[in-house]
Amino acid sequence: MYKVLKTEGNAKRAEMTTVHGTIQTPVFMNVGTVAAIKGAVATRDLYEIGTQVELSNTYHLHVRPGDELIKRLGGLHKFMNWDRPILTDSGGFQVFSLAGLRKIKEEGVTFHSHVDGRIIFMGPEESMRIQSNLASTIAMAFDECPSSVADIGYVKDSVDRTTRWLIRCRDEMNRLNSLDDTINKQQLLFGINQGGVYDQIRIDHAKRISELELPGYAVGGLAVGESHEEMYHILDVTVPHLPKDKPVYLMGVGTPANILEGVERGVDFFDCVYPSRNGRHGHLCTNHGKINLFNQQYEDDLRPIEEGCECPACRMYSRAYIRHLLKAKEMLGMRLCVLHNLYFYNKMMEEIRDALDNGKFSEYKKSKLDSMAAGEDK
Amino acid sequence: MYKVLKTEGNAKRAEMTTVHGTIQTPVFMNVGTVAAIKGAVATRDLYEIGTQVELSNTYHLHVRPGDELIKRLGGLHKFMNWDRPILTDSGGFQVFSLAGLRKIKEEGVTFHSHVDGRIIFMGPEESMRIQSNLASTIAMAFDECPSSVADIGYVKDSVDRTTRWLIRCRDEMNRLNSLDDTINKQQLLFGINQGGVYDQIRIDHAKRISELELPGYAVGGLAVGESHEEMYHILDVTVPHLPKDKPVYLMGVGTPANILEGVERGVDFFDCVYPSRNGRHGHLCTNHGKINLFNQQYEDDLRPIEEGCECPACRMYSRAYIRHLLKAKEMLGMRLCVLHNLYFYNKMMEEIRDALDNGKFSEYKKSKLDSMAAGEDK
Repeated sequence: MYKVLKTEGNAKRAEMTTVHGTIQTPVFMNVGTVAAIKGAVATRDLYEIGTQVELSNTYHLHVRPGDELIKRLGGLHKFMNWDRPILTDSGGFQVFSLAGLRKIKEEGVTFHSHVDGRIIFMGPEESMRIQSNLASTIAMAFDECPSSVADIGYVKDSVDRTTRWLIRCRDEMNRLNSLDDTINKQQLLFGINQGGVYDQIRIDHAKRISELELPGYAVGGLAVGESHEEMYHILDVTVPHLPKDKPVYLMGVGTPANILEGVERGVDFFDCVYPSRNGRHGHLCTNHGKINLFNQQYEDDLRPIEEGCECPACRMYSRAYIRHLLKAKEMLGMRLCVLHNLYFYNKMMEEIRDALDNGKFSEYKKSKLDSMAAGEDK
Repeated sequence: MYKVLKTEGNAKRAEMTTVHGTIQTPVFMNVGTVAAIKGAVATRDLYEIGTQVELSNTYHLHVRPGDELIKRLGGLHKFMNWDRPILTDSGGFQVFSLAGLRKIKEEGVTFHSHVDGRIIFMGPEESMRIQSNLASTIAMAFDECPSSVADIGYVKDSVDRTTRWLIRCRDEMNRLNSLDDTINKQQLLFGINQGGVYDQIRIDHAKRISELELPGYAVGGLAVGESHEEMYHILDVTVPHLPKDKPVYLMGVGTPANILEGVERGVDFFDCVYPSRNGRHGHLCTNHGKINLFNQQYEDDLRPIEEGCECPACRMYSRAYIRHLLKAKEMLGMRLCVLHNLYFYNKMMEEIRDALDNGKFSEYKKSKLDSMAAGEDK
């Protein structure tokens, strides 16, 4: 199901076969929080910009329109008309970051919906049931993501509970996958490594969850306030203790540089709202660094966002036009910028895979980072 | 340049050849206020939904990004990457409806920009120069659109001034079209009939401006608060006094029913923000009447907005999904609804042209109105 095709140092070039098609890794998953990518990006656009995996948020879809409705309508793939893999997160991260007042107990978490304030209870079983209703390709385990400044005692207890929750997730998914009316009976479960910035907790947890022989493992609780160096360090110490023959997913990361560093450390899957959120604000990724289209200097710039880029924005429009749209608050401006940024990310992942295929990742990484750092005018 | 192909009663089926291609009429122009259709609709979408003519607003583009910038960048067609005809309004309507405090004199109007409050002066010559900078296919004359409740004395004076302004517009456009650095030297001028709800003023004005032998004529100052019956009456008395061998444009109109009534009365060109504005609010046109996707009843409705519709929304998505997007305030929801509504309008115009070609307009009109009035459940 998961096959490593090539390695270079710790970096892996692999492919993972799922019921919704094969994923070539390393891969960047495109974030469509509520079953749509913000910025008026439609399914057809995703095919055009080279999206392999769409990621949707369990918590958001549970609150609205409701996972039971989505199940009744045939699952997320049918609902949003997307036939490639979908990964759903567990809801845990949103419960701990978005929701109002909450109470954590062994059974799970009680919290207030951020939409209408109603009280919701979610534990491992509830998260699995919701994700089974959504019928995603890959479901994430329900975990606690402790604050990056939590003390070691809290983190240790939290991680132990996350391990117990993981076992409950696995058991519940096995049960759900065996039911007649389950839409995707081959749903896969990824476990999540936690442990804050504490090396030994991370390592012990990685070893412990590896014993469960799940189809994949994520490193969670990063990119939540720690420095890039701390994040790279945690990857350095943790990833070697996750199974080599399973995909590794670095949750919520990150910038193009973060991704290159992650790949070097053995990461297969990435996701982040960075390219779409930045795009909506006119901040664009190029091979010559970031540009902010709101800057006056682009007012009469007839070049595309990036020369040679084959994205739907660059093939059709100038910086001057897109800048005008952004200034006039026209949705089309946001749409074009989001399409460009996601295309840039998806294309970079393709370049990374090609470089790994040719044993030239290290070279590629250096040249990509140098070019982005040099900026446009150099 | 304008050729009537067929008539049925007062209804005309015609075509108009321009430097940017031939327009088949009757036609509905799709409104892209600031050189983009609201709802993240891009050029490629316009080709797909069958748009013949895009309409942009002179006042808006003058204020932002500025018509001189657009000229420097090669004109509106190049700026927005659209190669079919563009009609620009004169700015008059926005000056009289949007702008702050204003003063009308024989030379023109002084007013405050709605964006930054700066004082702008616009008269016939300024409007023509701006539209020449934009290099649209068809430019509209600068007119005053008197309030629908203005008294007869005011309207008479206003219309006389509009006539004098029209002559100045024509002279200025002739001058501009003869200049070396004018982008579109074959820009066409349409005159505008005014006269409020006063039959005789409308008729006298129609006769007077017809003498100028312009490439087309609009009926302005309608759909500004009067009843549909008053509007149809004004068309009944006015259109017969405009030249038969020139296109007639009913400005800012309207609903599907308004358009069918307008065609019956000899109108060739229409434009309105109705389909795009309504679309953004989830109000959709169908052959079985309007539907409001926010209604609970569509929550689990797996049908497309309209069965058999070939628009980009109906080919891909269900009412349930689009409703979810609208409720979650996802831009994609607005985009899909706008695309559907504009497609519906463009398609209806095609049906109207086919019906006229086959001498069956009257039949078509009745059946279309009946079907829309009957609603979905009948």
